[in-house]
Formats: sequence, structure tokens, C-alpha cells
Amino acid sequence: MKKQVAIVEEILSANDRLAAQNRSQLDAAGVLGLNIMASPGAGKTSVILRTIQALAPHFRLGVVEGDTAPVTIDADKIISAGMPAVQINTGGQCHLDAVMLANALPQLPLADLDLLIVENVGNLICPAGFSLGTHRNVVIASVPEGDDKPYKYPNIYRGIDALILNKIDLLPYIEFDPDYFRRGITLLNPGVTFFELSCRTGQGFPAWAGWLRQQMEHHS
Amino acid sequence: MKKQVAIVEEILSANDRLAAQNRSQLDAAGVLGLNIMASPGAGKTSVILRTIQALAPHFRLGVVEGDTAPVTIDADKIISAGMPAVQINTGGQCHLDAVMLANALPQLPLADLDLLIVENVGNLICPAGFSLGTHRNVVIASVPEGDDKPYKYPNIYRGIDALILNKIDLLPYIEFDPDYFRRGITLLNPGVTFFELSCRTGQGFPAWAGWLRQQMEHHS
Repeated sequence: MKKQVAIVEEILSANDRLAAQNRSQLDAAGVLGLNIMASPGAGKTSVILRTIQALAPHFRLGVVEGDTAPVTIDADKIISAGMPAVQINTGGQCHLDAVMLANALPQLPLADLDLLIVENVGNLICPAGFSLGTHRNVVIASVPEGDDKPYKYPNIYRGIDALILNKIDLLPYIEFDPDYFRRGITLLNPGVTFFELSCRTGQGFPAWAGWLRQQMEHHS
Repeated sequence: MKKQVAIVEEILSANDRLAAQNRSQLDAAGVLGLNIMASPGAGKTSVILRTIQALAPHFRLGVVEGDTAPVTIDADKIISAGMPAVQINTGGQCHLDAVMLANALPQLPLADLDLLIVENVGNLICPAGFSLGTHRNVVIASVPEGDDKPYKYPNIYRGIDALILNKIDLLPYIEFDPDYFRRGITLLNPGVTFFELSCRTGQGFPAWAGWLRQQMEHHS
């Protein structure tokens, strides 16, 4: 068992070294890196597509799509929206890591980009353990997932900069206590910035896009 | 790297040995074991609560609740419904394994039970890799997660016996193509049995409870 622990620690510190290299590469190109984590089906790709609309034509985005299978459903949507996208197929693995991102970066026109969004694999647990080198980390929760998620899956909320509650257009049809949800997040991460979004109606996107613009300014 | 692979293989074969022991223990007690896997918030606990109602008073259920944190929200709900429940806190781990179930079984009155439902950790990837020794494996999908999940997270659907599509009461409010969804599952697992449920209205529970009764009969 001790041998296993040592190997796991070695993998994690190698990951951190590569994450730092990814960060330097993004910094050198003047690109803000954003890691988006969420459960399967929380609406990561839909939020990214609406974000592209909200920031266009003033900012240029690139997207890295993390998938467990070789389907390019999400990457195709980004490319159709006119932005460069690279798919990482993890081959069944449950999270992205810094090595995978390091392999994806050279396939993107970093010098032309303002913002790189990395869409992690849909998973509310494992992605929390692997830093990628991005400047900001965001979790997308969604109303149908239920208001108790911060209490049940606490680790993912701890290190993040922003929390998006997505699909708020479904609030009339679902029992969901926004105060209970928010209290759970705030207990874990008092400094987090909250956004409530609906990709269907566009509600909340001006505030979210404003925050992103601010992060890009602070960064460059 | 070779050393790491060897250790992983050793862990998996140890897991399989323990899974077989769990199965024997359930068989000796005449209990059908059911492993329920799903994304966070797909409605696992709600389905279990409605299943208890649908099978009562003729069948006695026990529940093992897999959680990544020490909160007993779900286990408390089962106990309030009058059935024995044991919580497994995985301490942040992303799936249940046969060791965890082996530790939980002695805490349940197996001799008094007909059905043991194991609610796995909310995760559409990692639980697929670890057999628990249960007789049947079920995935709960839910309408708000989207109809493309079988194409994006294929591994979890391959070994299962039944697929529940939950939250069908939300179909009027969400774009979801049931045929596209079903086609994706059937490509991966042609023999799977489908159920469409709504925990809000109770729709579909007679068919689901009928299937469970049949599995219990075939088993004993």
C-alpha cells in the first residue's frame, strides 16, 4: 500500500510541474485560462456557446473539450460557432490532467486568443484533484441536480473562483431552495463569486461576461 | 509505469474476489442485490424511496448509501421511510468498491431482507470499473442531463441490466429526443431493459416494481 501512495504522490507532483508549464505558456501568449468543471449534463457546452456570443466580437476564445469517448459532439458545436476547438479524448478516464492539456495547447492558435476555456470531463469528484494550470476554476451546477450537491460533493467547490447555477429557467418546475444551495457553497468557499444563468433565455449572461472581461483585464 | 499497472491489476482482482464473497453472502441470505449508478442529482434516492413504497408491504428492502462526504442526508430519508440503511462514506473517493460493501453488509439485517439496493456515488464514469457482487446493475439517467449521454459516457451502460430514464415529467420543458437517447443505449447494450419514471407523478413505477419482483423470484 505504501508503494502505491508514493506512486500517487509522484504522479500528482509531476502534474503540478506540468500545470505550471501550461500556465507559463498561457501567460506568454496573454491568454486567460479557465477550467470549467461540472456533472454530466449540467450544461457546460451550452454555457460556453452562449459565452462566445456574449463576448463576441471583441474577444477571441479557444476551447479544449475533455471527453471520455472519441465523439466530437461538443467540439463540433464550438467550431460551428466559429472558434477553434481541440478535443481531448481521455480514453475512459474520469478527469483531465495537466499532461493532456499540455498536449492540446500546441494545437491551438494561442497568440490569437484572449480566453481559453477548458471543458473538463463531466464529473463532480475527480477533476478537483488535478490542476491544469488554468488561471481560474469554475463549477457549473444546475437546478435539476438538486440543492443538496454542495453538502454531498464538497471537494469540488473548495478551490474554485466562480460558481454558476445554470438552468434557472427550470426553477418553476423543480423543488430547489437557492438559499440552502448557496449557504452550502459559501460554507465551503466564502470568497466564491456566484452567477445564475439560463442558456435558454440568456438570463445572467451580461453579468457573467462582465466578470470574464474583468478577469481578462486583471490578467493582461 | 509498469509497476503502477501491476498494482492496479492486483487491486482489481482483489476487488473481484471480494465481490464474489459479497454475492455468496447475499445468496445465502436469499437477498437480491442491486447496484444503482447515476450522475449526481439524477434522482437515485428519490427512485429508491418510491420503490420502497411500490414494493411495500410485501417486500423488505435494505439500502446502502454511498457518499463522498460524511453527510447522512440520503440515509436519513431511507430510515424515515422505515427501512434499514447503512451509509458508506468514501472519504472523497469517486466510487464504491467491493471492500466497502463487504464492510457494510454485517451492519444490515440480511436475513430479514428481500432486496438490497446499493446507491453508488454519483458519478457516470468510475463506478463502472468496480463490481460490488450485486446480482443486477442499473443506471439512472435523467431528462435534464440530455439525450447525448450514452454517446459521451459509453462505458457505464455496457454491463447493466436495466436503464431508468427518470424525471420524464420534465420532458415538456426540455429538449430531449427519447429515440436518439434510446438508440445510443441500445448500440452499447442491446439486451438492456428500459424504464421511464417520474418520482413526482409515480409514472412508470408499476412496471419497474414488476420487473424487480420478477428478478427477486428468479433469484430465490
